Formats: sequence, structure tokens, C-alpha cells
Amino acid sequence: MPTPAAGPASTILSARDLEFMLFEWLDVEALGERPRYAEHDRESYEALLALCAELAADQFAPHYRKSDVEEPEFDGERVRLIPEVATALEAFARADLLGLTLDEEQGGHQVPHVVAAACMAWFTAANIGTAAYSFLTMANAALLLEHGTPDQVERFVGPMLEGRFFGTMTLSEPHAGSSLGDVLTRAVPADDGTYRIFGSKMWISGGDHEMGDNIVHLVLAKLPDAAPGTRGISLFVVPKHLVAADGSIGERNDVALAGINHKLGNRGTVNTAPVFGGGAFTPGGAPGAVGHLVGEPGKGLSYMFHMMNAARLGVGMAATTTAYTAYLKSLEYARSRPQGRRLGTADPTTPQVPIIEHADVRRMLLAQKSYVEGALALNLWCSRLLDVQASALDDAERTEAVLLLDLLTPIAKSWPSQWGQESNSLAIQVLGGAGYTRDYDVEAHWRDQRLNPIHEGTHGIQALDLLGRKVLGGGGASLAALAGRVAQTVAQARDLGGEPAAYAEALQAMVDRLGEVTLALAGLGDPERTMANATVFLEAAGHVVVAWMWLEQLVAVGEEEGDFYDGKRAAARYFFRWELPKVGPMLDLLASGDTTTLEMRDAWF
Amino acid sequence: MPTPAAGPASTILSARDLEFMLFEWLDVEALGERPRYAEHDRESYEALLALCAELAADQFAPHYRKSDVEEPEFDGERVRLIPEVATALEAFARADLLGLTLDEEQGGHQVPHVVAAACMAWFTAANIGTAAYSFLTMANAALLLEHGTPDQVERFVGPMLEGRFFGTMTLSEPHAGSSLGDVLTRAVPADDGTYRIFGSKMWISGGDHEMGDNIVHLVLAKLPDAAPGTRGISLFVVPKHLVAADGSIGERNDVALAGINHKLGNRGTVNTAPVFGGGAFTPGGAPGAVGHLVGEPGKGLSYMFHMMNAARLGVGMAATTTAYTAYLKSLEYARSRPQGRRLGTADPTTPQVPIIEHADVRRMLLAQKSYVEGALALNLWCSRLLDVQASALDDAERTEAVLLLDLLTPIAKSWPSQWGQESNSLAIQVLGGAGYTRDYDVEAHWRDQRLNPIHEGTHGIQALDLLGRKVLGGGGASLAALAGRVAQTVAQARDLGGEPAAYAEALQAMVDRLGEVTLALAGLGDPERTMANATVFLEAAGHVVVAWMWLEQLVAVGEEEGDFYDGKRAAARYFFRWELPKVGPMLDLLASGDTTTLEMRDAWF
Repeated sequence: MPTPAAGPASTILSARDLEFMLFEWLDVEALGERPRYAEHDRESYEALLALCAELAADQFAPHYRKSDVEEPEFDGERVRLIPEVATALEAFARADLLGLTLDEEQGGHQVPHVVAAACMAWFTAANIGTAAYSFLTMANAALLLEHGTPDQVERFVGPMLEGRFFGTMTLSEPHAGSSLGDVLTRAVPADDGTYRIFGSKMWISGGDHEMGDNIVHLVLAKLPDAAPGTRGISLFVVPKHLVAADGSIGERNDVALAGINHKLGNRGTVNTAPVFGGGAFTPGGAPGAVGHLVGEPGKGLSYMFHMMNAARLGVGMAATTTAYTAYLKSLEYARSRPQGRRLGTADPTTPQVPIIEHADVRRMLLAQKSYVEGALALNLWCSRLLDVQASALDDAERTEAVLLLDLLTPIAKSWPSQWGQESNSLAIQVLGGAGYTRDYDVEAHWRDQRLNPIHEGTHGIQALDLLGRKVLGGGGASLAALAGRVAQTVAQARDLGGEPAAYAEALQAMVDRLGEVTLALAGLGDPERTMANATVFLEAAGHVVVAWMWLEQLVAVGEEEGDFYDGKRAAARYFFRWELPKVGPMLDLLASGDTTTLEMRDAWF
Repeated sequence: MPTPAAGPASTILSARDLEFMLFEWLDVEALGERPRYAEHDRESYEALLALCAELAADQFAPHYRKSDVEEPEFDGERVRLIPEVATALEAFARADLLGLTLDEEQGGHQVPHVVAAACMAWFTAANIGTAAYSFLTMANAALLLEHGTPDQVERFVGPMLEGRFFGTMTLSEPHAGSSLGDVLTRAVPADDGTYRIFGSKMWISGGDHEMGDNIVHLVLAKLPDAAPGTRGISLFVVPKHLVAADGSIGERNDVALAGINHKLGNRGTVNTAPVFGGGAFTPGGAPGAVGHLVGEPGKGLSYMFHMMNAARLGVGMAATTTAYTAYLKSLEYARSRPQGRRLGTADPTTPQVPIIEHADVRRMLLAQKSYVEGALALNLWCSRLLDVQASALDDAERTEAVLLLDLLTPIAKSWPSQWGQESNSLAIQVLGGAGYTRDYDVEAHWRDQRLNPIHEGTHGIQALDLLGRKVLGGGGASLAALAGRVAQTVAQARDLGGEPAAYAEALQAMVDRLGEVTLALAGLGDPERTMANATVFLEAAGHVVVAWMWLEQLVAVGEEEGDFYDGKRAAARYFFRWELPKVGPMLDLLASGDTTTLEMRDAWF
């Protein structure tokens, strides 16, 4: 792999680490034996990765700070972004990166998800605010390809994959964020087979701007006869400008903005409160925004949840790379900033040493390394499960991949979001006072990161999903699949002996204990109590899973020699000695069936 | 105590909690038996607290957001602040709050530190950015009162206590932040007994503005014949405008600004890079800024460290109140925001419930309550130790107070800074997407908080101070004093029986273990290894100390009935069940003498 030279790309991501993960650990080359990926090889993957690294460094990273300072503005009519955003996204589309993983017959390239995830990591690390517009568009396109009519695909997906149209996911409303069953947006059938949409939405990323020719909204709304709650939700395509059957762009649809949200971070991505059918425009002379039903009525939320799982993995990767780039920037600072002397140096006339010489600074760097490389491993592992699903050689392989991915998705979303925040905070701390100024990027990455435990299902909702739906809902099958897979790693690590073998024992003990605690929770006989501490379960399971990812990496490292491999060993050691033991008290708390939060009353606060 | 009605003050701090801590727990009334505080009684304290609550709500809180958005500007000549800052500080001075704790003969009121700390808490909670100008001035005045000449006191301290002059602490330089021994600023003796100061400083809060008549800088600098390192540092008063012996303000001194720093948070307090003797002005026709030596040459750092200890307690209190107010704001939101339904409510047509009904939201609120009330207790406890020192009835009492305060200061600074951050993050999480916007204060408090583990000695430096200087440096006397004091609380809690008795056992076990681990660290025979994990020691000791503070509060609660007391019991339960057990793995790590970070090499990153 042509490793980018020290320079812009070297503080975005580690090309060497991606090379290790893809080729030395996950053996991406072996995917080439499967028909779906037969056209690709290591050389083509490396070329693609190098292209992405270069494009991210040239077009995305340079305006990272500018798009934070000069955030999107809404003048009551139009949303204005700094011009660098459109330029970067045009280059991204020109490089034909929007359909990497799609089928060839859909206009895609059938690149394995695991490689595509590594490619996209360069862009989220370089500039999450700008990259998000492309990612929303790709998610929108993928959903329409799965559930839309051929006509919808032709009218909307084609232009999105060319980079001419942008896409959004338009779910939440002012009074219905996490509780999507409560959406009030209405869809009224029109005589021509389309629908007229009326309602106010909230928290819609990329919801308006002047880039490209059009914006394609995927909108959750309820038909007049809809059942209450989530079963009554349908999905509609609602373009900003109407699109004729021949693809020509017509009059403006009735999609306007009530305003935009001004955020703590992630400021490059405009976040909007759109109004559908508010009367700002009357396409065809009738009130309402013209929408097209996607798939069957009442199935909108299930279609969205398919997309949502991909989006959650995307958030996990964005969280990972937001922490990864801050780690690299703090590392660069620690190597160049002189301050103080080593412990025991009494002579104040000796030169100051770079702060990386201080044990506590090394602690902060090593902690970051263990978090970001652990998180990256987990997210790439999940992407590889997508590839196994898409190219499974038999049912057993597919079933295992589905079970594991179901279980790991809430963890791959929440763990990097939580520990990425800690990692981003350590990056600031390494820089000290400098890190607290806006002269350095680390504070901006820390602000960006804070979004990740909130959007695409909050941390608490991931916990309910993991414990309620994935672990207990499936009768234990997914946890058993995980335990089985971990056991393979443990066996390999035992064979290595030494530290890997010792860590294997520690991991196996925690996995066993997690299984016991899960049984105990299931047996409480009181669903409210079982679920009361779901967040602790999520966090405990997350640390166990990332410890497993570190053991996986140690097995891949094997007996290899050199600084890079010694770094992997040190980070794994850090995780097993400093991090995994934190799970003990969490499991104790879960095993006790603690009811402290359940019994807390409003009046006691 | 006249509790402020629900309204502005009710989301700043809890008047009820302060009442509990001061009068039901710390028995501040008993201080009235000591001659120093004989003039005061509960009624006068309550009136003072009510005044502060009202002033904070009326003059400080309203421009909290504005001073974040419209941060200080430097036009190359002057620093401009929004006018509300000066108005608030004039009201603060008019209320005669600048000399609360000083001796009457110094123009003070001999209010106990513990009461003054509670008073000042209202201002840091309401608006830390504005309050900081007063606090810096008070710290400056206290140092000059201790070490300055009568003439210096008359010229500079009098006007500061009247609110006419402002003060700064001017220590750091661009290349010397944590490493103060490396300061390069020079002080050259002049013929008239003054000195001429030359040098560039950095990170100076309140370093320039147009408020009041003058700014009094306390500047660390080195005389021509100074010893290398910290022993060569002297302290000088350097006013922005010269002050004649009769108090009249003369020409401009040679103090200019190279620029101001633009920060992540805490934006209301201007942070500057001043230049002394750069030639912008030539007072008296000669180059250099005119300075007056404070105390003896070479003792500057020791004078500063006296002030620094007070400043560290001040940071601890600011961290506490920054988290406290965000907790109250998230609580108000959780009570008023409907979203979703209780677990097990299958009918989607029932109304949504306030989010405080969800167990995971209660978890986040209860965690915050346990952090902020634990931190407040610790900081008030430390303030009460200052009172015992200032009014000790015998040497034994004074010695114990000095030992305990020495030991607790790095903890009182760092624990609220660390867990306040977690608390502030939970406040955002309670608000969800709304919490990520700048429409609510919680994101700003979270940004403000991030400064606290950095300034006045970083988190890592507090750790070296605690383990190296306070615990091991003193031969174990301070830790023994702490253990002795904890044992008293444990005995009282045992007498209560029930939960307090159970928590007493858990606390005693952790204290015993902390003592054993300390001995093991002391016995490693390798100072670098002993100190390698000092930060873990700091964090473990912090959690143990705060658990003790919760046991103290439980003892004060006793058998009292009512929502307030049940709330204290629930928060204590949370801390003992959810938080204290986290110390176990930390002590295990310390006991192992782990060398992971010590062995990590630069090339392995």
C-alpha cells in the first residue's frame, strides 16, 4: 500500500493501521474467492484507499475548521454553505465513490463493505461535516434501491449516484424524536397516484442547501386510515423540486424551512426544521408537498430500520475516526512540544523535553490508541460481517453473520461514541491550554463527537435494543453466537502462549460472567427491573467485545517484530490491564438486580 | 433561610441543599463560638446567602449566554467586553462582597470561608465567565495582604476591595506553562527602588479590559542574579497604569497585549498574552514596565503557591457549580419534556410521558445528583478546614486541619473537574438533540467545564502533587489524618445501622485498601515506577473521599423524613452501589505496580 508521506494525511488516519487491519488481520484478499468480489484484488483495494486518503487530505481536511467557524446560514429563503463543501462533494462524486458497495447491475462496484468502510473512514476523519452530505445520500439511495419502484430508482437514485441530487432521512418531528410512533405528518392520497404531504419535521441533516440540482427527502408520514403508533407509519419520497418521468426538473415542491438548528459541533452539516405542505409553494396548484409512496403502506418504519442499522454502523465509524484523527493530532503535538523535565532531573538548566517523555502523557496517548484502534477494529469487523452476509457460501455462515451483526450493531454504534468522547477529551488534555483554544482542532473534534451518543438512537436506546431486542428477544441465540466466535479467538490466543494466552483467560472469564449475568437478568421475572440497568449491560458488553477485538489483533500480530507490532502489543496490554477490569463492577451491579434508579422518585430530586 | 422562589435562581443552585450542608451537616452556627466569628449568626449568614442568590440571578445569570456568543474582542489596542459584565461586577462590589473572609482590620468581614464559599457558588454557577474577574481580584488582594508592604496594600489592595481596580495572576509564558521554573521574564532593578520588567506572558485571565480604573498584575519574573529554576523566581506588582503614593493614577505602564486567546468555553473571561516592557509605552521615559518587588527575592513561587492552593479550591468549586447548574437545568427539562411511554405501555394512543419517567433518564439525573452534591460537600468541607485553621482552638486542631487540607486540595480541585465533566455530559444527554443545540445552556456549561482539568495545575500535576508531595512526601501523616477522620464518620454511620452501616463497611474496606496500596507503592524502590500511575491514585482517592462525603451526609440526614432527605439517601445509595466499586480495579492496577505506560516508547505509537 502506498503509505501517504508525513503531511496532511498522516494526522487524518493511520494508513499503516488500515493496512494491518484489512490485510494482515481481516484477510480481505480472501474475499476475492467469493464470486461477488472476484473482480477485486489487493492492488485495486490499495489504489482505492490511496485515492481516498489523497482526496480526503486535499479536498476535505483543509476546510474542516472553516466550516466550523462559518457555519451554515439561513436567510429565510436559502441555506448557504461555504463553497468548499460543494467543491469537495463534487470531487467525491467525480471519483465515483457514491456507489462503491452497490451491485454492478445497480451501477455499483461491488467493493466489499469492509474496504468501503476503510475508504469512507478517510473522509469522516478529515471532515465529518462535509462527508455527511454524501453519506446521507448513499443511505437514501440504498433504501430506494431496496424498496423503491423502478421508476423511483430511475428518477431519484440515478442522479444521486451521479452526485447531482442529494438525499436526506426525514424522520423526527418537534414532539417526536426518539418516539417515532408519534409522528403527526400526514399523507393524503391524490388522484394521480401521488400523495400530498403536510407536517413539520425536526433535526433533519442536510435538509436544505443550494448544492446540486435537487434534494430527495425520504419522509415518514401517516395515511388517513393509518393504525396508531409505529404500525401506521409509511414512507414517501418527497423531492425539493418535482422530477418528471423523463428526469427533467420541474417546479418547486412545497418543502420549506421553519429554521435551522445551531449546534455545539458538527457544524458543517446543516441541520434543519423543514415544513412540508405549509403553503410556501403550491405545485400543480394544489396544497401539500407532492410525495411518492415507497413500498407498502404501514411499512415505513421497517424500511427505515434497515437503513438505520447501516446508519448506526456509520455513526460508530464516524465516532471512531473523530477520535482517531484527534489522537494523531495530539500525538504530533506531544512529540514537538517541549515542557518540563523527566522525573528525577533536578538540574533546571537542562533543556525541556518533549511532553511525550512524561509518563502521564504517554498514558493519555496510549489510552487513546487503545480506544481508537479498538473501535476501528470493531467497526471493520462489523463491515466484514456485511460482506459475509452479502456473499455467504451457505446458510449457516449467513445465519451466524446475521446474528452477530444484529448483536454488535448497537455496540459498534455506542462504544466508539462513548469512549471516543473520552479519547477526544484526552487529546485536548495532552495539548493542555493550547488544546482549550480554537487554534487547534482537538476541541472541535471533541464537540463533533458529542453528537454521536445522541443521534440515530440515543445511548439509552441502543441499550434497550441490545438487551431487550437482541439478547433477550432472540432467546440468547445471538449471545451464544458471540460466545462461540470469541471462543475461537481465545483458542488461537492460547496457542500463542505468553501475554495473549493470559489475556485470553481474562476475556473468557468475562464472557462467561456476562452470560451468567444475562441469565440472571432474564430470570428476574420483572421486565422493568430486567431492563432498568440496560445501559450498564451495554457498556459492559461493549468493553468485553472491544477486549475481544484486541485479542483478535494480538493473534494477527503473532510473532511479528517491529515498532508497529510492539505498539499493538502495548495497546492490547493497556486495554487488558487498564480497561477490561472495569467490567467487573458493572457485572456485579447487574447481577445484584440493582433498583436504585427504578425506585428514584421525581420529588426526591 | 428565605428560599428563592422557583424562577431564575432555582436552576442556578439549590438553596435547600446549601441550607442542608451549612446548617444541618457542617453546623456552621457552631463556628460562632469561636472569637473570630462571634459577630455572625445563622440569621446574618442566611441574609448574605439570599443576597448572593438574588444578585447572581439578577445580574450574572441573564448575560451568561450573551458573553459566550459575544466573546471579548481585541482591536489591537483595547479589549472590549459586553457591558453587562462591568454592570454585574459593579453590583458585586457595591454589595461589599470582595472582602468577605478578610480580617476586619484589613477591611474585611471575617465571614467564615465555608459560608463565603457557598455565597460565591451562586456567582460561579450563574456565570463563571463574569465571576472570574472578581475572584482573580480577590486572590490578588489576599496575596498582597499577606506578602506586600503597607504601601503596596494601600496603593493596590484598597482600590481592589472597592471594586475600582481589578487583579490578575501573571505566571505562565508561551514556553513555560506547567514548567514555571522556566520563565524568562526579567526584572531589572531601577535607581528608585522599583524594577523594570521585560517579558512575554501567556494564558493570563482578565489580563486586559476597560473595566474599572486599573489592572494590577502579579507577575513572576527573574532578577539578573537569580538562581536557575524555581528558586530564582521573584514576584512583582505591575499595574497597567502607574499609581502615585497618594493613590492618584498616573501614566500608562508598559503593559501591552500580543493578542487574546479564543477558547472552547469560559469565553466570558478574556484570556490574554501580555507583553511587559515591549516598548509600547515608556513610563518615566525609560524602557520597561515599572514593577514593585513583593516580599523577598526568589520567593515568588512560594507566595504564589499559597494563592494557588486557594485557587485550586476555587477551581474545584467552579467545576462543582458548573455541573450543579447544568444538573438543575436538565432536571427542569426532564420534568417538562414529554417523549415516549413507560416500558410495557403497548397502547400508542396514550399520551407521551415526561422523560423523567424513563428509568435511564432517572439514572442520568441521579448520577448527576450524586456527583454535584458530592463535589459540593467536598468543597464546603475543605472551606470549613480553612476556618478551623483560621480560628483553631489548639495546635492539634490546627495541625489536623492543615494536614487534611493539604491532602484534600488536589482532590477538591480534580474530582469535580473530572466528574463534573461527566455530569455536564449527562445533562446534555438528558436533553438529547435539544441539548446539542446552542438554544440551551447545557452545552455551554459542558464547554466551560473542560477548562477545569487544565488550568491551575493540570489533572496530571494534581496527581503528582497528591501522591508525591502530599501522601509520600509527608511520610504518610496526611493519609493517616484522613483515615482517622473517616473512622469517625464510619463509627457514626455504624451506630445508625441499616444502609449507612453497610456503606460504612464498604468505605472502611476501601480506605484500608488504599492505605495498603500506598505502602506498596512507597516500597517499590523505584521512584519513576511509584509515580507512573499517580493519576490512577488521584482518581481512586477521589472516589473514596467523595464516598466519605456521602457517608457524612447520610449521618447528617439521620432519621429525618421527607422528600429532600429521601433524595439524599437515594443519591448516597447510587454513589455506594454504582460509583465506589469502580475503585476496586484502580487499586488492583496500582497494587500491581503496572508499568505499561512507563515502558511505552515513542516509536510504538
